[in-house]
Amino acid sequence: MARARAVVVLTGSELSRGDKTDANGAFLARELTSLGLEPSRIMIVGDDPAELEAAVREGLEAELCVLSGGLGPTHDDRTVETLARAAGRELRIDADLVRQIEEVSRAVAERLGRPYADFTPGVHKQASLPDGAVALGLAGTAPAVLLECDGRLAVALPGPPNELRRLWQRVLESDGLQRLLARVEQPRHRVLRFFGPSESAVARVLEETGGEGEGLEVTVCAHDLEIRVDLLERPGGKERTAHVAEALRAHFAADLFAEDERPVAEIVLDRCRTLGLRLATAESCTGGLVGARLTDAAGASDVYVGGVIAYSNEVKERRLGVPADVLARHGAVSAEAAQAMAEGARDALDADAAIAVTGIAGPEGGTPEKPVGLVFISVLVPGREETERFVFSGDREAVRARATAQSLHALRRLL
Amino acid sequence: MARARAVVVLTGSELSRGDKTDANGAFLARELTSLGLEPSRIMIVGDDPAELEAAVREGLEAELCVLSGGLGPTHDDRTVETLARAAGRELRIDADLVRQIEEVSRAVAERLGRPYADFTPGVHKQASLPDGAVALGLAGTAPAVLLECDGRLAVALPGPPNELRRLWQRVLESDGLQRLLARVEQPRHRVLRFFGPSESAVARVLEETGGEGEGLEVTVCAHDLEIRVDLLERPGGKERTAHVAEALRAHFAADLFAEDERPVAEIVLDRCRTLGLRLATAESCTGGLVGARLTDAAGASDVYVGGVIAYSNEVKERRLGVPADVLARHGAVSAEAAQAMAEGARDALDADAAIAVTGIAGPEGGTPEKPVGLVFISVLVPGREETERFVFSGDREAVRARATAQSLHALRRLL
Repeated sequence: MARARAVVVLTGSELSRGDKTDANGAFLARELTSLGLEPSRIMIVGDDPAELEAAVREGLEAELCVLSGGLGPTHDDRTVETLARAAGRELRIDADLVRQIEEVSRAVAERLGRPYADFTPGVHKQASLPDGAVALGLAGTAPAVLLECDGRLAVALPGPPNELRRLWQRVLESDGLQRLLARVEQPRHRVLRFFGPSESAVARVLEETGGEGEGLEVTVCAHDLEIRVDLLERPGGKERTAHVAEALRAHFAADLFAEDERPVAEIVLDRCRTLGLRLATAESCTGGLVGARLTDAAGASDVYVGGVIAYSNEVKERRLGVPADVLARHGAVSAEAAQAMAEGARDALDADAAIAVTGIAGPEGGTPEKPVGLVFISVLVPGREETERFVFSGDREAVRARATAQSLHALRRLL
Repeated sequence: MARARAVVVLTGSELSRGDKTDANGAFLARELTSLGLEPSRIMIVGDDPAELEAAVREGLEAELCVLSGGLGPTHDDRTVETLARAAGRELRIDADLVRQIEEVSRAVAERLGRPYADFTPGVHKQASLPDGAVALGLAGTAPAVLLECDGRLAVALPGPPNELRRLWQRVLESDGLQRLLARVEQPRHRVLRFFGPSESAVARVLEETGGEGEGLEVTVCAHDLEIRVDLLERPGGKERTAHVAEALRAHFAADLFAEDERPVAEIVLDRCRTLGLRLATAESCTGGLVGARLTDAAGASDVYVGGVIAYSNEVKERRLGVPADVLARHGAVSAEAAQAMAEGARDALDADAAIAVTGIAGPEGGTPEKPVGLVFISVLVPGREETERFVFSGDREAVRARATAQSLHALRRLL
């Protein structure tokens, strides 16, 4: 069995011009990888017909081509017609699809108080499919389209990420995809996530163990202060994969914190839940990012009670009980202030565990003694408390992101 | 003068497999657009040498090709050698670059307590440039590279976004880019941002005014609850652009809230600053996202005093003074609770203006009367207060993002 290439084509001038950051490429790439396909290329192209057609033609050379965007009713939505042309198929109006789209359009017309006749051209456009294609469901008035073509598969999905994810499920259930997957080997995917070592230290150990080779692909990547190693085991690579994974586990035993995909915030919440601890936060420079990360996942509420965003010194003093003389003597960005904030959050919010962050995110506000990037993080659980000083590099956004990730890991380690 | 095509190639298996979401493509696309170039394609490819080479060859067909990633010292960092091969140039070791990289590497070796000899192969690799290329500066030990080639330009930049942005400045200052820009027409870019109308309503008005055509390109996109219209005026398009902009302004006068790029949080902060108002937040389902948005930009501290993340009912009661009987009678997700939270944040944090958000982000917790997506938002300024009910669609992440954006716009309108 061969490895199958997949290509993703994302279309829209708002993407190619950078007015909007794409949210579908990484999602689709992860999905394709987990299906055992190799997402060999992700392309973003604008509304220009020639650029779009060139990209679709390249996409059709892969075993699977996933298109996103350009399914709307207006003139610059050209994905389906381009797919038809590139695949050498005629466009035909699908009567069943006309009825479905008509129903949605009539409701919209009514809501907007416009005559339905205004919608007719759009309905016919959106109900036109390449000969032999099937519709997989609607997003608004836009159908997702699946086309099998010389043993290869092309699917066209809407651009809005929620709609894309919903209709991607239909693709997964389709006979066309199942037939493709039956011809593809399924790799085994393992992940090892470390907090502490540098990317190059991990790469060195990898190399010393033989690393990548027949039956094993490895990627190492640093993200959000963690070093993530992905091991893709292919047929014949079982022994090598086990050997590499064991060597990494042994060498960085203290730094290995996960072998699954759970975000660190979720790991922290799970650990608190097991220990019966209620968690509170106190944030200055991160302005709510730690709380936002903790509440990203559903079900945080049995552990996380809430937090205080103490951006001004007054709030630090009055709502977190940071003593005025700590602020006067050490400043709001100090180990003493961080510790008082953590204790204050615990006490004010009636929690058992706490995370506090105070720092200088920049670009203004730095001094020679307290440079931009200086952050103090204090974490506590019953009977233990830890405060650390960091100087993070990067711009305001990077300092805030790093401080957020570091604070979650600090509590994770204390737990 | 002709419009010049630009192509962006982002490399790294962590990107092509979706382990990491690209952060450079949209940045580079915006920069290229603002320089008057047409970013016709953004490609993400993995570490596979054949896929990378194919992408680089396509990139070199454009007037400007920007490469990002793959500049590191290890075997799977192949961008520079691939660029050399695709451009038909030899690789040569640059003696000056050897010295610069050596200096950085010696410091790293010392810090890690490793013999410098371990680093020598990496230094020679990273100091190798295609014949005729120039180095524009280092990111760690990785040089940014600029190569002029048959009147076209290729630049290779490091993958970490901060490094890329820093070294992109060097590209902007380079003679090579200046020579390219001298041959390119500069379009005028205008943006109109609306809050309120639907995307299709805006598209309809656009169409009725003649819309896109000779000398004017228009994109309409919905993002973060706003409808953004980008007008790219090219030579000969002055009158048409003015006409379209005027028609949109007139038709959606009440909904037009910005003609610049400032995030809505910044608009809110600026308005509060002008009025001398201090701002506080009270968040339940958004868990800190509103605070995080307000503190994204530097200089929020003279307006934003902080907030309370009231995830549990206890915190709502004790820290925001939401009356127990409001919670008992109406529930934590109610107009009454939202209003009490806003007033509580204002009073507890000694502010003048406040934003409060409470809702059911899902996926659990919904009931027939209070479905997932139900959110109450309350905003207040001295003498005025407004509470609204929303049912947002989408998953947990979408509901939280929409509630956050909506709450900022609610206060913006009240101001």
